[in-house]
Amino acid sequence: MNVPDAAQYDGLAVTVIDIDDPADPRVDDFRDLSNVDRRPDVAVRTDGAVGKGLVIAEGVFVTQRMIASRFTPHAFFGVDRRIGELAADLADPSLAGVPFYRASRAVMAETVGFHLNRGVLAAAHRPAELSVAEVIADARTVVVLEGVNDHENIGSIFRNAAGLGVDAVIFGAHCSDPLYRRCVRVSMGHALLVPFAKSDDWPGDLDVLRTEGFTTVALTPGEGSVPLAGAVTGGKVAFLVGAEGPGLTEETMQRCDVRARIPMSRGTDSLNVATAAAVAFYERISRSE
Amino acid sequence: MNVPDAAQYDGLAVTVIDIDDPADPRVDDFRDLSNVDRRPDVAVRTDGAVGKGLVIAEGVFVTQRMIASRFTPHAFFGVDRRIGELAADLADPSLAGVPFYRASRAVMAETVGFHLNRGVLAAAHRPAELSVAEVIADARTVVVLEGVNDHENIGSIFRNAAGLGVDAVIFGAHCSDPLYRRCVRVSMGHALLVPFAKSDDWPGDLDVLRTEGFTTVALTPGEGSVPLAGAVTGGKVAFLVGAEGPGLTEETMQRCDVRARIPMSRGTDSLNVATAAAVAFYERISRSE
Repeated sequence: MNVPDAAQYDGLAVTVIDIDDPADPRVDDFRDLSNVDRRPDVAVRTDGAVGKGLVIAEGVFVTQRMIASRFTPHAFFGVDRRIGELAADLADPSLAGVPFYRASRAVMAETVGFHLNRGVLAAAHRPAELSVAEVIADARTVVVLEGVNDHENIGSIFRNAAGLGVDAVIFGAHCSDPLYRRCVRVSMGHALLVPFAKSDDWPGDLDVLRTEGFTTVALTPGEGSVPLAGAVTGGKVAFLVGAEGPGLTEETMQRCDVRARIPMSRGTDSLNVATAAAVAFYERISRSE
Repeated sequence: MNVPDAAQYDGLAVTVIDIDDPADPRVDDFRDLSNVDRRPDVAVRTDGAVGKGLVIAEGVFVTQRMIASRFTPHAFFGVDRRIGELAADLADPSLAGVPFYRASRAVMAETVGFHLNRGVLAAAHRPAELSVAEVIADARTVVVLEGVNDHENIGSIFRNAAGLGVDAVIFGAHCSDPLYRRCVRVSMGHALLVPFAKSDDWPGDLDVLRTEGFTTVALTPGEGSVPLAGAVTGGKVAFLVGAEGPGLTEETMQRCDVRARIPMSRGTDSLNVATAAAVAFYERISRSE
């Protein structure tokens, strides 16, 4: 028997169910987490087939944020100890009857496909996507990504946005899925809390932003850029960032109001895209304090 | 025969030597790169024994920076194509007679222990370490780390330091080795170019910094901190950052002139330590432009 003795927790809304067999189909939504095609968070497989596209939270903090978000978990999978750590969260009435599959570390490792230090996972189905109009409705500061396809960078941008007062993230063309497990983890769960939308009219949505009163600020070290400190105004601002290396496309930059650069030492590369975004967010939040 | 046809390159200083056998002892300095104990960049093994402690550069950009640095490569290991890409760098007279071990991707993968996308490696012995006095002698802005033991964060701090005008990095207590392969890679090679020193009198060296005219600024979200924008002065500045989570020790903060915080949204975590450092570096460089 690998499962520890059942601890008693008062007031849990979830239903604790012990899992002894790593092959138990009830934990299929947590199976093969690092398998490129079988992993449950893949929305579109490499062969083009539709994957489960689940959202997976891992660890106590991210699981707490998922519970607090619009991504309502439909199942948990974790070791006994994490039930204790999450007891207050797992008492949320919205989780009534949701299964918490409890297992030993060894069973979890075999199901998941690797040893999971964080000891707890939660899975949610994707809710309806928000539109650009919805996420900018009450926003004063937004960040718009173009061609950013590194999950770690996208996760860091969400974390920085949450920390530095950015209200929404908008995905332009050629960005990766922000709900991939690695992205959610690196974001510390903020990918589930900071509203985001995928543009379905790119770069046309930049004109929507301008119509709604946003000053669009393209972050670029290139020609014609002004120092960031002078480019950030007091009204609504949308910062645009492109992928490391290519940066923003010229077409996109031409639709922006301002091109702004971060002052850099001579002979160095650009900053990491999430770091550059953080600097811009900081410039904004520190001027409005 | 796995090795491609030998291309002709004029004017190389290095000596190109073909390697057909992954077990060839001449490439031992590049063997088992991801093995926790046998990897050549380990200075002290998990059992306390002394490792080779080599510095390993990977990829074209980092190799170029190593050649330009005080870490002089004593051997290269790479595929034929990378010789072409590095031809101008490999013509440097300081590299006269240094072996460039040329191999196929398959032979490299077997020696190194994994498939190395970047296709080229360079190895250097560690030169004598610089002292704190040496690295601060001509510096106007330095960053001091305490308890930062994540290689990726240390690498990012070097990259951000290089990009945002920081002259030196000082390691206080409980930091990881900045010359670990992952750190060098994440730093984009700047760990080899930005001067750094390990404090051998901690936290006493903070008094040395103050004696040398540096204002010591502890980055902390805690009580008694002032907004970063008001804390950065025009003279010499040393920023202190601690590990994510614990942050700087109270003892260290008490020795600093100022405690400064980055304005943050309510209810969010601190920023990643390298991101927080970048924001401080930006505050400094943008005020002095």
